[in-house]
Amino acid sequence: MNVSAQAKKRLLTGDRPTGPLHLGHLVGTLHNRVMMQDQHDCWLIVADLHSLTTRSRREQIGELPELVHEVVLDLLSVGIDPEKSTIYLQSGVPAVYDLAILLQMLIPVNRLSGIPTIRDMARNAGLKDDEVPLGLLGYPVLQAADILMARAEVVPVGGDNEAHVAIAVELAEHFNTLYGPVFPIPEAMVSSTPTLPGVDTVDGGSQHKMSKSAGNSIRLKDSADEVARKVRSLAGPAAGATPEDLDSSPLFAFVDAFMTDKAAASALKYDYLRGKTNADSVHQAITADLEILLRPIRERRAELMADPGRIEEIVVDGTIRAREVAYQTLNQVRDAMGLESLWSGLVAATQRRAEARKRPY
Amino acid sequence: MNVSAQAKKRLLTGDRPTGPLHLGHLVGTLHNRVMMQDQHDCWLIVADLHSLTTRSRREQIGELPELVHEVVLDLLSVGIDPEKSTIYLQSGVPAVYDLAILLQMLIPVNRLSGIPTIRDMARNAGLKDDEVPLGLLGYPVLQAADILMARAEVVPVGGDNEAHVAIAVELAEHFNTLYGPVFPIPEAMVSSTPTLPGVDTVDGGSQHKMSKSAGNSIRLKDSADEVARKVRSLAGPAAGATPEDLDSSPLFAFVDAFMTDKAAASALKYDYLRGKTNADSVHQAITADLEILLRPIRERRAELMADPGRIEEIVVDGTIRAREVAYQTLNQVRDAMGLESLWSGLVAATQRRAEARKRPY
Repeated sequence: MNVSAQAKKRLLTGDRPTGPLHLGHLVGTLHNRVMMQDQHDCWLIVADLHSLTTRSRREQIGELPELVHEVVLDLLSVGIDPEKSTIYLQSGVPAVYDLAILLQMLIPVNRLSGIPTIRDMARNAGLKDDEVPLGLLGYPVLQAADILMARAEVVPVGGDNEAHVAIAVELAEHFNTLYGPVFPIPEAMVSSTPTLPGVDTVDGGSQHKMSKSAGNSIRLKDSADEVARKVRSLAGPAAGATPEDLDSSPLFAFVDAFMTDKAAASALKYDYLRGKTNADSVHQAITADLEILLRPIRERRAELMADPGRIEEIVVDGTIRAREVAYQTLNQVRDAMGLESLWSGLVAATQRRAEARKRPY
Repeated sequence: MNVSAQAKKRLLTGDRPTGPLHLGHLVGTLHNRVMMQDQHDCWLIVADLHSLTTRSRREQIGELPELVHEVVLDLLSVGIDPEKSTIYLQSGVPAVYDLAILLQMLIPVNRLSGIPTIRDMARNAGLKDDEVPLGLLGYPVLQAADILMARAEVVPVGGDNEAHVAIAVELAEHFNTLYGPVFPIPEAMVSSTPTLPGVDTVDGGSQHKMSKSAGNSIRLKDSADEVARKVRSLAGPAAGATPEDLDSSPLFAFVDAFMTDKAAASALKYDYLRGKTNADSVHQAITADLEILLRPIRERRAELMADPGRIEEIVVDGTIRAREVAYQTLNQVRDAMGLESLWSGLVAATQRRAEARKRPY
């Protein structure tokens, strides 16, 4: 951590370790994070407890060591710098559990059951209404505990987690009102997070947002050949397409997202409209620029993989740092609520008794 | 703890520290507990976190040191023996928070929202439907965490907490099925818990069960004069009452509960029916036998109060013991789930890297 870190606002964001990161993450959030780490004290949570809300079976938990390794490798390979950013494992910070249980006393059930993302997560995990676990309903409160224990001031949000950050804000304000000013009020930093369509290596893949679960992603770890093959799966718009058809097509969404020479991109579209070029050429142009983006990521990944234990060391160091901050925050919370003086009062009375009994008459 | 404690089944029960215990508790549960402590390894939880589910305001928490002291004083004064029973403070055992959060992943919201006691507790606390906090919905899960972390095998239940023990049983079975046999399955020990009507020091007090919140109680700490005054508040059944009227009257409920000479009690009823005796005499008979019961309790209370710090020492000792057991259980839980190997794997890889770098080439 450099000297000026104290002056930087702390920012918290992160990922559930549920699979390798892909191009959708890169354009959606990862580029932003890399840019933000110079201006902010970035904390990146690897949210394994959150993944338990929908993946609690033993064999799913058994995949976590590999999944955690992969997600951190992805983060570092895109340029997250462990000297600037704290990467930590959520389940390795026990004080978060305490804080979550205490915060659960301060928020009505109805406030949570109305959040659409809870229902979406349940549906995506294939849970029926009567199977939604209490932990999933409490997901936003656990997330608030992460944010508040870290004393984060800034939380980047893209569309669907804005409702969760709102819960953290409400809990911080409610707590501060009830017990005194303990938490900085976190601020949601809304950024434009362009969404990327998937590829057609699965049926209709480009009709949906690129996502791990849909199986329609180009992963950051994919080889150059795999990337080229996946790009080629994207069909070009049919003959006679309008400029609007082009702009809204998955193929040209990739052109817009990844061709850095905007004039060349426009020329390509124009030629495609007039039948002067075909999908093959567009695929090649996309792949060429994607390689410029992905090659250094692949190289950093290879360097990191040649240094066994480096990923784990970064997570352990970050988690130990997060633990210290979390315990400090939890102590402030227990102090403000009056729970700490309850316990310390018991201990003090016990000690006074022990001393009084030692004293000669 | 005596040598044979290991062979005894562990029993867990306890109280929310919300006010002084009274005669209703004495006949309902306290006498049972005192009897059970010889045959069981009794754990008595002072459930301050549970009291937060409905009493989370700062000034309410500020009353906890006094309330905790009072409830433990009550327990010891009726004959709970700290050499036989472990009395501990719930919020002083951090591993319970961890376990509760993990158990929340394993139970559907709908299973909890259907439990009538949750609604009753909300209503008693004056909470409207849209004010019920998540923590109150999670109350039975936190209670299950208490029971399961202590590896309790027996949980005494009277009517209304039977549904909560059922949740603990379900969670233990579900956890063991998912992750392997970690928890003993707790057994609900259903005991007849006679309920006692209140006294008429408040309007209509005897029409309800004796309870702290109704203000119609005879407290264990009440002086002999207060007890006599409160007993006198009970009106006798009207002239012309039938034997059935007598048996169902609050006044004679006290006769049945506290007159040890059952023949004398029957004679008193017979005389009252025939107008040969009046309510005053019945009051005197009840008060006399109550004093036989309450005088030794009052004397033990006075002894304990003359030994400052003794109560606190008992709670601190018990809590430290509970902490050790809770950490052992939590480690087994994290082991079985695979969370412990996730963390220890990260640490081991980090250590291997550090050692490899120390090694000369």
